[in-house]
Amino acid sequence: MESNAYSQSLVFSKLRSIEASPIFQGVVIAIIVLSALTIGAKTYDLPPIFEKSLTFFDNAITVFFLLEILFRFSACPVKRRFFLDGWNIFDTLVVIGSLVPLDNSEAILLGRLLRIFRVLRLVSVVPELRFLINSLLKAIPRMGYIALLMFIIFYIYAAMGSMLFANVDEFLWGDLSIAMLTLFRVATFEDWTDIMYQTMEFYPLSWIYYLTFIFLTAFVFLNMMIGAILEVMSEEQNAKQAQDAHDERDEITRQLRQVQDQLKELTEKIGR
Amino acid sequence: MESNAYSQSLVFSKLRSIEASPIFQGVVIAIIVLSALTIGAKTYDLPPIFEKSLTFFDNAITVFFLLEILFRFSACPVKRRFFLDGWNIFDTLVVIGSLVPLDNSEAILLGRLLRIFRVLRLVSVVPELRFLINSLLKAIPRMGYIALLMFIIFYIYAAMGSMLFANVDEFLWGDLSIAMLTLFRVATFEDWTDIMYQTMEFYPLSWIYYLTFIFLTAFVFLNMMIGAILEVMSEEQNAKQAQDAHDERDEITRQLRQVQDQLKELTEKIGR
Amino acid sequence: MESNAYSQSLVFSKLRSIEASPIFQGVVIAIIVLSALTIGAKTYDLPPIFEKSLTFFDNAITVFFLLEILFRFSACPVKRRFFLDGWNIFDTLVVIGSLVPLDNSEAILLGRLLRIFRVLRLVSVVPELRFLINSLLKAIPRMGYIALLMFIIFYIYAAMGSMLFANVDEFLWGDLSIAMLTLFRVATFEDWTDIMYQTMEFYPLSWIYYLTFIFLTAFVFLNMMIGAILEVMSEEQNAKQAQDAHDERDEITRQLRQVQDQLKELTEKIGR
Amino acid sequence: MESNAYSQSLVFSKLRSIEASPIFQGVVIAIIVLSALTIGAKTYDLPPIFEKSLTFFDNAITVFFLLEILFRFSACPVKRRFFLDGWNIFDTLVVIGSLVPLDNSEAILLGRLLRIFRVLRLVSVVPELRFLINSLLKAIPRMGYIALLMFIIFYIYAAMGSMLFANVDEFLWGDLSIAMLTLFRVATFEDWTDIMYQTMEFYPLSWIYYLTFIFLTAFVFLNMMIGAILEVMSEEQNAKQAQDAHDERDEITRQLRQVQDQLKELTEKIGR
Repeated sequence: MESNAYSQSLVFSKLRSIEASPIFQGVVIAIIVLSALTIGAKTYDLPPIFEKSLTFFDNAITVFFLLEILFRFSACPVKRRFFLDGWNIFDTLVVIGSLVPLDNSEAILLGRLLRIFRVLRLVSVVPELRFLINSLLKAIPRMGYIALLMFIIFYIYAAMGSMLFANVDEFLWGDLSIAMLTLFRVATFEDWTDIMYQTMEFYPLSWIYYLTFIFLTAFVFLNMMIGAILEVMSEEQNAKQAQDAHDERDEITRQLRQVQDQLKELTEKIGR
Repeated sequence: MESNAYSQSLVFSKLRSIEASPIFQGVVIAIIVLSALTIGAKTYDLPPIFEKSLTFFDNAITVFFLLEILFRFSACPVKRRFFLDGWNIFDTLVVIGSLVPLDNSEAILLGRLLRIFRVLRLVSVVPELRFLINSLLKAIPRMGYIALLMFIIFYIYAAMGSMLFANVDEFLWGDLSIAMLTLFRVATFEDWTDIMYQTMEFYPLSWIYYLTFIFLTAFVFLNMMIGAILEVMSEEQNAKQAQDAHDERDEITRQLRQVQDQLKELTEKIGR
Repeated sequence: MESNAYSQSLVFSKLRSIEASPIFQGVVIAIIVLSALTIGAKTYDLPPIFEKSLTFFDNAITVFFLLEILFRFSACPVKRRFFLDGWNIFDTLVVIGSLVPLDNSEAILLGRLLRIFRVLRLVSVVPELRFLINSLLKAIPRMGYIALLMFIIFYIYAAMGSMLFANVDEFLWGDLSIAMLTLFRVATFEDWTDIMYQTMEFYPLSWIYYLTFIFLTAFVFLNMMIGAILEVMSEEQNAKQAQDAHDERDEITRQLRQVQDQLKELTEKIGR
Repeated sequence: MESNAYSQSLVFSKLRSIEASPIFQGVVIAIIVLSALTIGAKTYDLPPIFEKSLTFFDNAITVFFLLEILFRFSACPVKRRFFLDGWNIFDTLVVIGSLVPLDNSEAILLGRLLRIFRVLRLVSVVPELRFLINSLLKAIPRMGYIALLMFIIFYIYAAMGSMLFANVDEFLWGDLSIAMLTLFRVATFEDWTDIMYQTMEFYPLSWIYYLTFIFLTAFVFLNMMIGAILEVMSEEQNAKQAQDAHDERDEITRQLRQVQDQLKELTEKIGR
């Protein structure tokens, strides 16, 4: 039984060495890129023969992805840990999404849409992209309260807008959600003066509404950016400067201790 | 009488512990969010039965806010201090605004508009948002003179624009205030070339006017942003580095003092 | 003769104390603001009686500015130094510009345009604005070579654009200068896709031209901004850190010297 | 033979001193600027006599550039090293490009386009611009993975867009590449609401598609910028602070060593 456990651990280490090998990684990346190209190719008008081979190709990729995930699952010594990694869950979901049978036209569209997320597997496979995404995700909570503040500003202005301007243009200010979309448009400066000139015909002072809104959002946005830059910077500097100060102090402290030792020695010599 | 004062202070501390309890805070936040949803719901076309219940709901919230502010006022030991806090004044004004009787249609619109500001009470209740707003308010004076400079640039260009282009397009350059609005539009790049092409038909060199304006505002704006980043950063660093330098020096100074003490001891020993 | 020179210097110091007094400064600023309002008011359609009083007002301001500059000139002890200050030259030119006689309609427009620059006197009078402008002017040379690079990019793309697209749309790509204006429009994202879709009808690959141009300018612009931030920051830090390091080292060096002195004293004691 | 080698090295040093002289540099820069002006002038409608002299001028410049590059090549002592410098290769290619014979109208356009790149020679001749370009080129790899991530986002959204919206507007969502161009347009906020309103008629929830896309790209873009600023900053600071720390430590270390030497001397004195 011991030799059994031994041979099993040997199999695992063999499987894992295959999984970590650059060849295996390269093949997986190549297949993902191919899969992305297949998805892209389908958006073009192609001759039927081509279309058919693409479908065949697509199924082959689905099978490959299924085998790959099963292989990686079997290479994982502790099965439960496999599903604790968010990236593994994501990969599994993408593969399961590809297995949805495509019967009617509705399902075909859904299946094709799900297949697009295969491209995202590139992120889960290339370590640098995975690191990038992780650092981007870390930046989200930092912006949480600013986002809430922005939402409150949008909400208040949208409520005011739909109360005042709903009878000017139902299409732009009909209800709260439409008004919020219109305000987002104003915040991106997209033909915002057309909207303003329209309401100014009925409410000549409504430019105040737009200008205060633009100034408020721009001001909050700018301060958010400045805050983000400063926060990340001070974090990095804190870590680095603490290290610097430590290193420097260490060196001088070491020398001072030598001086103290010399003095002690001297004192003893004299004391004799 | 002493026991009276004692029982009174007991009541105050009891009230304040209720006010500070997470349950009380949570209930208030929930009611504010509900109030915001009520305001939003009113912008949609709803069946009359729903509309009626919303009005009832609205009044209930008004009563709740009134009771809450009275409660918080009574929980405050020194009454005068209550109105020294800007957030309390703001809350009180919002509640008073909700009490305006809604007789005719004009007043109804005003009352509904005032009710929107209830959403802002979220800012006054959630401490993180309150902190954010305070830090944003602190950023305003920093930008004061830059804003003045911007205004002067706008004023000069608007005066020039309305003098030169008023007869080209009365709607865009009619007078100084209209011209300033048009220039703000140019500064946001909103269909600014349409405005330029129009005046270039009469003044072929008027592109100089627009380009210098865009460069000036963009240049001042960029430098303002850079300045803001640097100022906040240097403030933070000043504080931190002064602390760092102090800590470091302290450590080395302490050791040097030990060396000096040892030397003094040694000198005394020899002197004997 | 000595007493003459003495009384003269007394007059100068008297004049200068008047010039520097907050009342004098306040009056000058008030008059400039009034002058700005006068200029603004003229862009509105006013009743003739108002218009006339504005003209009278305008002349009064011109006289005041003339007197003020003469006063400041006479308060300056060394006359030549007065014209070495750029702000004084600017003020003098603005006043001389106001003295141009307004005979025909052409001259009236010119005179009114020149009068607008009076608003800029606000910058020369308020010290904070003067400081701001000086720091903005200092930022210009820093951006010199980047601006040259930008110009080269614009020049090359404009030359290519007017060669390739001149027969597509004469109005947008007629010659080099028109093409540069069009490219500036593209760089501000102002209806740039309209321009692209138009040329793509004739040259289906012309999107490459626009995308490379946008990426190049955005990339250079971003790096310019980052560079500007870093440069100003490192300048400030250099100054501050050098000071910090100096202060810190001084303190430690002082203590070390004390140790050395103690040691010398000790050595001498033993040597005896 | 020795005197031959000596005279040859004398010739080289003479040639190189000519090449490095400010007069030579100035003449080359002047000719490049002239060449740029010639290229620009050709985009205008000119009288035939002028056009002819421009062509003559153009050929003269080509000859000058050819001679200049031959001169610089002959001034280079090690011929192979000449082509290891990217700027030299660039200059040579530009000159060769100008030598293409212009027979038919097609070739004329190509020849004129190639001639535009002569303006870029300004970059290769002015050292400050060369330095700027080098530092910009260094910034590219830093943005590599972010660019890849951006491309993946664009690819996924373009695939989804062309699947869902292709039958709404063939012109905007026809296939993957057209959809990517449309998304780039959305990312620059160029009339993006027109595109959204169009698809919202068929898919009322398609605003989710646009808003998530805008938020994603803006968020990634912002973090990229912040990251770039921080990276460059920390690099610079690392270098500078390491130097600072080194200098400071050196000074103190030197003094401490003096103290140690004094102590050693003292110990020896006592030991005697």
